[in-house]
Amino acid sequence: VSVTIPLGFEASGVHAGIRRAAPDLALVRSTAPSVGAALFTVNRVQAAPVLVSKEHLAAAEPQAVVVNAGVANAATGAEGLAGARATADRAAALLGLEPQQVLVLSTGVIGVPLPVGKVVSGLGDAAAALSPDGGPAAAGAILTTDSGPKQAASRGDGWAIGGMAKGAGMIHPCLATMLAVVTTDYPLDAGEADGLLRAAVDGSFNRISVDGECSTNDTVVLLANGASDVERTPGTDTAFVAALHAVCADLAAQIVSDGEGATVLLEIGVAGAASDGEARAIARRIATSPLVKTAAFGRDANWGRVLAAAGSAPWNGGFAQLDPERLTVAFNGTPVYGDGAAADGEPALEGNALRIELELGLGSGAASYLASDLSYDYVRINAEYRT
Amino acid sequence: VSVTIPLGFEASGVHAGIRRAAPDLALVRSTAPSVGAALFTVNRVQAAPVLVSKEHLAAAEPQAVVVNAGVANAATGAEGLAGARATADRAAALLGLEPQQVLVLSTGVIGVPLPVGKVVSGLGDAAAALSPDGGPAAAGAILTTDSGPKQAASRGDGWAIGGMAKGAGMIHPCLATMLAVVTTDYPLDAGEADGLLRAAVDGSFNRISVDGECSTNDTVVLLANGASDVERTPGTDTAFVAALHAVCADLAAQIVSDGEGATVLLEIGVAGAASDGEARAIARRIATSPLVKTAAFGRDANWGRVLAAAGSAPWNGGFAQLDPERLTVAFNGTPVYGDGAAADGEPALEGNALRIELELGLGSGAASYLASDLSYDYVRINAEYRT
Repeated sequence: VSVTIPLGFEASGVHAGIRRAAPDLALVRSTAPSVGAALFTVNRVQAAPVLVSKEHLAAAEPQAVVVNAGVANAATGAEGLAGARATADRAAALLGLEPQQVLVLSTGVIGVPLPVGKVVSGLGDAAAALSPDGGPAAAGAILTTDSGPKQAASRGDGWAIGGMAKGAGMIHPCLATMLAVVTTDYPLDAGEADGLLRAAVDGSFNRISVDGECSTNDTVVLLANGASDVERTPGTDTAFVAALHAVCADLAAQIVSDGEGATVLLEIGVAGAASDGEARAIARRIATSPLVKTAAFGRDANWGRVLAAAGSAPWNGGFAQLDPERLTVAFNGTPVYGDGAAADGEPALEGNALRIELELGLGSGAASYLASDLSYDYVRINAEYRT
Repeated sequence: VSVTIPLGFEASGVHAGIRRAAPDLALVRSTAPSVGAALFTVNRVQAAPVLVSKEHLAAAEPQAVVVNAGVANAATGAEGLAGARATADRAAALLGLEPQQVLVLSTGVIGVPLPVGKVVSGLGDAAAALSPDGGPAAAGAILTTDSGPKQAASRGDGWAIGGMAKGAGMIHPCLATMLAVVTTDYPLDAGEADGLLRAAVDGSFNRISVDGECSTNDTVVLLANGASDVERTPGTDTAFVAALHAVCADLAAQIVSDGEGATVLLEIGVAGAASDGEARAIARRIATSPLVKTAAFGRDANWGRVLAAAGSAPWNGGFAQLDPERLTVAFNGTPVYGDGAAADGEPALEGNALRIELELGLGSGAASYLASDLSYDYVRINAEYRT
């Protein structure tokens, strides 16, 4: 269960000294020529590694990924861009690749320049440590305040997909950046990876929220090297798409479950909306409501807050359609609201999962979202001084 | 400094028993015929008193306002509507008015029906207690977890404006509803009040955020009875508009300063945006960012979070325009970001106010916002069980 599960991938994780104690530099590469794709944050403020990786992706198919933790290399100006380029240059030289075949990802404090000397020197160690068993080491070297590594894998008939991610955690207060690298030995043609990754991300990483923040560094990468040499058929293609969705969904759920201060995993389902887009807007609004999230932390079946959030979901310059007379709400399968007023249900809210389901009775639009709750620990983690 | 400062207004606040201990029913009326206006929440889920007050306002000029605390009478179906109507009917009978001349406002737990018997009985006491000195009692009877009453006033040459509000606080976990009643003896014609109130609210109550939640009950009412008998001139009109803005801004600032768990008042100023709308979208995004608000609680000059929030301000289906290379950020007057990277400034963040100023360098759009921080107490207040 790691990025080196598929054939023809090597990885490593080392301590480059970007931060004091933990491993902070990961390298993942395909030993054979690969094709790939990447999706990046849409924030107007984009970190240097995001800008450089976009350039590289436009010029060549990717074959290796460098990830550093500890410093986000965002809002660092020309110096930051030079650092990201130097990282890719050095990795390319060590691996016998063109710099454009290397993507660079960073996570950590915003506004602090990358310590290029440490990264360049650490890359030598990382390249020397590359191994087909190095997936777990790489997954461990990209974490910040994550409580543990996040890995996922899926095996098809003769091929495999592996993945690793980091989520909502920090060493120093900074953004809850989300990074993921997914590898496969399934044979994809150049140009196929982007559409497949986009669809998988839309149903997974784009449906989770820890705190509604959109980071400067979020990046998801897919590398496909075809090393499995399997014969593609419509059947295997269908299986691959399903497996790619499953691996992305697995990593996304791990990120939310390990969200900063999280004590409950909220699963929000909206059905019967006027459109899928409106269902998603409503699910997202509930997923990011501080009042819903604090109630979840308190294990309070406070459906009034869910209603009020659902009724104020931004959509097309106004709010998504919703009729309180037609709407029903259930908590963990127990009806709590319907026919315009409270239902008699008394849902059980013990445990670490809360399923909130809305049926709007307006159409066939549906969407789901995963979210964490809002706890004292979220405030503690994010209110501490940078030191 | 209360709603009974203008001539011809009486008010009272009594304990009707809707909640256990504190006064929970307020009455404000003009003793002379008045004109007025009201603005309501735009949430798709609207409380019964909001629906009934809208009907009444469409049918007649308002002359009295009933406010109850403890129960929001939202998501209460036909029973809730009947309760809101019964409240207005009873107040009208006691005051010799038509029911349509009475507006009803509620704040408290969502989903709990109004205890109509207690309200009707309490209205008898409230009508008997009406007094030109009753403004402070009324202001005290509309609070929930507010730490104290919120009142404001402004005196012109022979006329006055008074106001009261309740803000972000609860007895039981429910929404941070915002209610305000503003009175004046300045002579306004029927039809004038709405536009004047709308402009004043847009620059005050619509520029504050405690937790980004849009409630089911938010209402702002203006009653104008002309009892001052002043002669209107363009000069007095200008003074009145300025005073109305000032009273609304004063009440709005009191609401944010007393936001749930608030320890810092955040003043966010955005200038140089491509348009006023985009400036406002960016200011609002910063004002509602959990990471900015937890950093403020920790007195951390974390401008990276401000940048990331500003770069992801929803606007026209995308994000508001922003160029990180042109943007500058200052905290309490000290530059912290410019020319694409950190500035050298070390702002002092002690105290209970934090001014965050952005200059975007794109145009002449400007906007400001007031917000509270996100503290342990916000989580505590909102995570406690309803009892």
